[in-house]
Amino acid sequence: MLDLDTIINAALAEDVGHGDLTTAAVVPPDALCRARLVAKEAGVVSGMGVFLRVFELLGSDFQWNSIRDGQHFQSGDTLAEGSGRTATLLTGERVALNFLQQLSGVATLTAAFLEAIEGTGCRICDTRKTTPLLRMLEKQAVRHGGGHNHRFGLFDAIMIKENHIVAAGGVAEAVDLARAAASHMTKVEVEVETLEEFEEALKAGPDCILLDNMSLEEMREAVSRLGSNRVVLEASGNMTLERVRLVAETGVHVISVGAVTHSAPAIDLSMLIEQA
Amino acid sequence: MLDLDTIINAALAEDVGHGDLTTAAVVPPDALCRARLVAKEAGVVSGMGVFLRVFELLGSDFQWNSIRDGQHFQSGDTLAEGSGRTATLLTGERVALNFLQQLSGVATLTAAFLEAIEGTGCRICDTRKTTPLLRMLEKQAVRHGGGHNHRFGLFDAIMIKENHIVAAGGVAEAVDLARAAASHMTKVEVEVETLEEFEEALKAGPDCILLDNMSLEEMREAVSRLGSNRVVLEASGNMTLERVRLVAETGVHVISVGAVTHSAPAIDLSMLIEQA
Amino acid sequence: MLDLDTIINAALAEDVGHGDLTTAAVVPPDALCRARLVAKEAGVVSGMGVFLRVFELLGSDFQWNSIRDGQHFQSGDTLAEGSGRTATLLTGERVALNFLQQLSGVATLTAAFLEAIEGTGCRICDTRKTTPLLRMLEKQAVRHGGGHNHRFGLFDAIMIKENHIVAAGGVAEAVDLARAAASHMTKVEVEVETLEEFEEALKAGPDCILLDNMSLEEMREAVSRLGSNRVVLEASGNMTLERVRLVAETGVHVISVGAVTHSAPAIDLSMLIEQA
Amino acid sequence: MLDLDTIINAALAEDVGHGDLTTAAVVPPDALCRARLVAKEAGVVSGMGVFLRVFELLGSDFQWNSIRDGQHFQSGDTLAEGSGRTATLLTGERVALNFLQQLSGVATLTAAFLEAIEGTGCRICDTRKTTPLLRMLEKQAVRHGGGHNHRFGLFDAIMIKENHIVAAGGVAEAVDLARAAASHMTKVEVEVETLEEFEEALKAGPDCILLDNMSLEEMREAVSRLGSNRVVLEASGNMTLERVRLVAETGVHVISVGAVTHSAPAIDLSMLIEQA
Amino acid sequence: MLDLDTIINAALAEDVGHGDLTTAAVVPPDALCRARLVAKEAGVVSGMGVFLRVFELLGSDFQWNSIRDGQHFQSGDTLAEGSGRTATLLTGERVALNFLQQLSGVATLTAAFLEAIEGTGCRICDTRKTTPLLRMLEKQAVRHGGGHNHRFGLFDAIMIKENHIVAAGGVAEAVDLARAAASHMTKVEVEVETLEEFEEALKAGPDCILLDNMSLEEMREAVSRLGSNRVVLEASGNMTLERVRLVAETGVHVISVGAVTHSAPAIDLSMLIEQA
Amino acid sequence: MLDLDTIINAALAEDVGHGDLTTAAVVPPDALCRARLVAKEAGVVSGMGVFLRVFELLGSDFQWNSIRDGQHFQSGDTLAEGSGRTATLLTGERVALNFLQQLSGVATLTAAFLEAIEGTGCRICDTRKTTPLLRMLEKQAVRHGGGHNHRFGLFDAIMIKENHIVAAGGVAEAVDLARAAASHMTKVEVEVETLEEFEEALKAGPDCILLDNMSLEEMREAVSRLGSNRVVLEASGNMTLERVRLVAETGVHVISVGAVTHSAPAIDLSMLIEQA
Repeated sequence: MLDLDTIINAALAEDVGHGDLTTAAVVPPDALCRARLVAKEAGVVSGMGVFLRVFELLGSDFQWNSIRDGQHFQSGDTLAEGSGRTATLLTGERVALNFLQQLSGVATLTAAFLEAIEGTGCRICDTRKTTPLLRMLEKQAVRHGGGHNHRFGLFDAIMIKENHIVAAGGVAEAVDLARAAASHMTKVEVEVETLEEFEEALKAGPDCILLDNMSLEEMREAVSRLGSNRVVLEASGNMTLERVRLVAETGVHVISVGAVTHSAPAIDLSMLIEQA
Repeated sequence: MLDLDTIINAALAEDVGHGDLTTAAVVPPDALCRARLVAKEAGVVSGMGVFLRVFELLGSDFQWNSIRDGQHFQSGDTLAEGSGRTATLLTGERVALNFLQQLSGVATLTAAFLEAIEGTGCRICDTRKTTPLLRMLEKQAVRHGGGHNHRFGLFDAIMIKENHIVAAGGVAEAVDLARAAASHMTKVEVEVETLEEFEEALKAGPDCILLDNMSLEEMREAVSRLGSNRVVLEASGNMTLERVRLVAETGVHVISVGAVTHSAPAIDLSMLIEQA
Repeated sequence: MLDLDTIINAALAEDVGHGDLTTAAVVPPDALCRARLVAKEAGVVSGMGVFLRVFELLGSDFQWNSIRDGQHFQSGDTLAEGSGRTATLLTGERVALNFLQQLSGVATLTAAFLEAIEGTGCRICDTRKTTPLLRMLEKQAVRHGGGHNHRFGLFDAIMIKENHIVAAGGVAEAVDLARAAASHMTKVEVEVETLEEFEEALKAGPDCILLDNMSLEEMREAVSRLGSNRVVLEASGNMTLERVRLVAETGVHVISVGAVTHSAPAIDLSMLIEQA
Repeated sequence: MLDLDTIINAALAEDVGHGDLTTAAVVPPDALCRARLVAKEAGVVSGMGVFLRVFELLGSDFQWNSIRDGQHFQSGDTLAEGSGRTATLLTGERVALNFLQQLSGVATLTAAFLEAIEGTGCRICDTRKTTPLLRMLEKQAVRHGGGHNHRFGLFDAIMIKENHIVAAGGVAEAVDLARAAASHMTKVEVEVETLEEFEEALKAGPDCILLDNMSLEEMREAVSRLGSNRVVLEASGNMTLERVRLVAETGVHVISVGAVTHSAPAIDLSMLIEQA
Repeated sequence: MLDLDTIINAALAEDVGHGDLTTAAVVPPDALCRARLVAKEAGVVSGMGVFLRVFELLGSDFQWNSIRDGQHFQSGDTLAEGSGRTATLLTGERVALNFLQQLSGVATLTAAFLEAIEGTGCRICDTRKTTPLLRMLEKQAVRHGGGHNHRFGLFDAIMIKENHIVAAGGVAEAVDLARAAASHMTKVEVEVETLEEFEEALKAGPDCILLDNMSLEEMREAVSRLGSNRVVLEASGNMTLERVRLVAETGVHVISVGAVTHSAPAIDLSMLIEQA
Repeated sequence: MLDLDTIINAALAEDVGHGDLTTAAVVPPDALCRARLVAKEAGVVSGMGVFLRVFELLGSDFQWNSIRDGQHFQSGDTLAEGSGRTATLLTGERVALNFLQQLSGVATLTAAFLEAIEGTGCRICDTRKTTPLLRMLEKQAVRHGGGHNHRFGLFDAIMIKENHIVAAGGVAEAVDLARAAASHMTKVEVEVETLEEFEEALKAGPDCILLDNMSLEEMREAVSRLGSNRVVLEASGNMTLERVRLVAETGVHVISVGAVTHSAPAIDLSMLIEQA
């Protein structure tokens, strides 16, 4: 997995390449400026650490004061103020904003889902439908928005889907194979689409059961059949801000929402610059 | 800039890490399957080359027939059919789809913008508001959708924005500095927001002028003032599918649209698997 | 995490550098040979895939037939036979053997621990006391020897140790903090050293409890206090082949053994070469 | 060859991955502690520089005072004392110790071999039987223990073994080929197993002759036949602490010992932490 | 493209490898010295930033005062003076000088070409005939010598050569294809060898025309035929210091010279060291 | 040290970047051609392996027959003939030629030095004055030209220069320190500038002595003082094709020539292409 500096350096290499021709030609090397980053809509910040690191990796001569990841802001709020060499600001601006706008979009949408289910005791979590190479940052953004993470990838938990069940020859067989091979420190989840499958899964004894694309009634029924069983119930499938509260009120413990990473619109931010 | 294999390998490392625990535990190593990738909405394909390469880099034992990047498809169409080891399919599926769905989203939205301005002779192009580390793929997706690319980054063309002009001391000064320093093989564009700035830019003699956030009337006026001047006029600023045709009809040569890369919704695709 | 080819290429770069001076000077480029790899003691193979890949990455002109990872062998058994260019064999031999001997040592020692507890139903697992950069391979070797893996690293499960408890202000506090922050797909284990701590941990409700350096009597007592609680009990602390069966017979579910990775002696193997 | 920071960063990536879940969840970010690293057995330190660098690469907020590589210590001695953020200490501890314990093991075993031959004027050196990817550190550890290095790899000296001789058609032929191709700055060594081969080698005029698996008598005889010849005699083959003095007393100049790198047991160290 | 630190670290790895044996053995670690870098011939500096960075990447304990890239110097001038650890100076000296001597050679030869055409208003630019992996540094050296850069590579401008024309079916066809596919921010140049081809190219309307290997008369004729056409004329083909002024006086706008990068002799520099 | 594929891929990334705009726009993807690489002057080939690998790494659809590294050629000779996709040829041509022309230049100049000393029994070798990042290839080119290599870098032999001697306190002290620290497999050379220093060096007993910038008479005197001493004498200092034979005839064993790598002019080669 790429670490943060590798990601930022790759983003800078992608944008700056062998040099920022415009700035090199037009901006005096010793020109100074003051910059202010203003929100043009409300939201939750994520990626401020990345934003600041972009300028450090460009040579650290631009100094910022900023709000912190996880903070809510309103339209018109100043998210960061800084000063330093104009050339540094202009060369790093686009890369820094590309990260900050996308990640704040993820945090903001996550926060909206959480607000929608407030008081239900249910959790919102993400999925693996993330932007390639940016999963670590997007999963962090989900946490900044108040959400939780599902497994990070294929390597840190077992999730048995329909195709695994077919290959294994049944739910019980699949769960047994998983338990036999897996570390005692690894959780096992089974995905089901019907109440019959749910019953079968319940007997097999996984740690979690994913109710995929079930109706509200089916979910309620599944919850009611749990009894004292401590298995965790997760619901998924085209969650919207409109429907998510109804799902949470069925009593499921966790709702996973692909949209928070794959469909979060970028937050509109504006960089205002004046000569120092 | 990361090359394609480096990008895919990083995406696989991110998702698979030290191993796909579920598949290793549950799927017999020699199990075979047939898979079919079906569109659940219409669009334009981009990223099929990436999709196919994911499975090759996992060991090349899954063979696909597929449509090609740039092709249009309808809801229900089969985009790819393949067969091979079930384990390979299940381990690579999510990474392959994350690329294909996002990139096809970019191509599809670009194609929609082009359809909206059909017959006007105007071009649609992208911006630098791309997903960090995926710019090469997203700019390719724009071309698959029928669009053109703007400059790739800060290194392959000169774009003088307001802050550069302030730092340089004026439009003429900035363009002169750019011409003096730049290769004779590098184009120079100046961004203007008013007709006064437009006049000033026109005199300075850049290769292109960007009309930023101008009204339709202002754009029409700018076009009419061009005369025999061969400078290229580009329009930008919150382009929507509704407004873009009106902008194209003002006579500008190119319209740049940030949304095609930063706001394209992922295309909904479904992988159907059956045991071979 | 380094993938297999990166590890092998780094090992080859380390040993071969800018060239194998001896082979280049002394061995005719077209000389062929046959090679046989013979065990000089009994054991379990691990690393055969790595061994074979070394020669492929050197140019793939040396072909081998070999037994497979996980197989038991006796002193005098042939583990692999091959033929090809002498130069390839001589240049890759040391790197290939360094991997195979060390990893087979891990598998062999793991198998010995498993044999020692045969019939008890207890599991043997590894720890994070692995050789830096080779953890993936060593954890695989543990599985080849019949063992299970503990968590891979700090990122795929939660293990609350004494210092975490002190920092959190108590066992219950630590477990609660862990549960609140962690994914529902992440297991939580607590380490205890006394029966009092064990009681406290049991109440806090983790998924697993690690009994660290307890006496056999304490372990037996802990097992007996479990009742219907489904928490997993793990034992650790200077396990030897002599003592491990007694520990397994206390009824704990898993025994973790650092020695299988940090103290496994290399297996003695001999490469016999004859000109073809 | 991987440089030190690359090795440490890879080790941290391997262990920490996308995050230390336990510390992030349970340890307050501003908690401070004092730590003391105590030896539980006597030995020679190697890897202290690596140990300290691990914490620097994690963010440098943990400060240590330590003894230096190459120093001898007794059981109970404090090797390092430090203070800083608890989170940093807990996240880096395992990686730092894995290096320090393994490398100090190498230095300690090397020192034991040197003690065994004290006063003989003979040297102890290592071999290429090192842990893949850690050769630079292990060869340094051999020097910290008072030993010398043999060639680093295949690229910095010529070592003609039996298979090279067969391929070249004889000892003289092999040495001549080596001399003709090699730099005047490269040494040439020939491996022999009998006194007949020794005679043949002596005539061929290499810089060094390796007496492999010879009896003490044969070694004595080889030494006596040297006369005024300035060739260096090296002995190898299953050296133990018991036998090595007898070998040194035969008069050979260097004894190479694979065990100092491939079989050195890790040194037992204990990290004691208290809240600051 | 490799960035500066990656290039320097690779150069250090290439030269220093697992250690500077001589300095480690012979120079006391705390020995200090003063060093002075003296020119043994006149020239223009380029690579001083690289020279200084070499010592920083070795540990930054050697401090320098130096003249700046782009400055002219005479034989006997001091280019840099510094002091610090002798070991650092001796280990980094060769790598630092290899860069500085080669790059100053490029800058010096470029300056000689510019001096030769002084007053003509013509530009000197480089080509893609650069040393593999050092293009960014060599193109910078050309600028330090007063020259301009041609396109950086195949990706930042379009250059249609004879073979492209044949493949496209004609000059007009090739230019049309280029215009249709290229960004509006990308320049298009066509290479011609005769006046007939020049006429054809002029009609096709590229941004630049390269007159390859034309006689002075042909070049003069091409210039005279330009009229009010704003196309840029570039001349190329075996330019020497003797002939270049005659070419510049034909009225072409730019002369590209492969020799400034592929045939610039290294500048002779001498490092004088004295103990501090 | 960068391996061959890494070097070539970096060279391709440097030149091709995000795409060959011209070829993509102008050359039909299925166009085929035949190419012939012709020498425009006589020389010795080096880098043909690199040349061929460039096209393989671009996709391997261009097939070549070529002469081999180390072969002599005359002006007008065909060095390689091939056929395949025109696009591949045009995209890879410049990178492939940049390597081949520079490396053949090194081999050709080395061969000229060897021809100049023919029959003297003396060797020509290179120095560390090589192009950063291309040392492995340039040292190979020296061998292709019939020369030998000096040490590769600072890590594979000990070379004691004047500054080392000053730091150590004398020649004898420096050689003793070197012998004490160095492997028995590492050679030790001392650089001297006068006959007095030569005498001192001879007594210290190094493996080689470098006579730096001595007159022919001094070299002759040094040779005559050798007697039965088997130390290797190397001469260096501004060797030219005119003077080198006189130096060789003094009886020194090796002459090192920096010019063969730092000043070898590129060989002039011409690629002729015709449509297939």
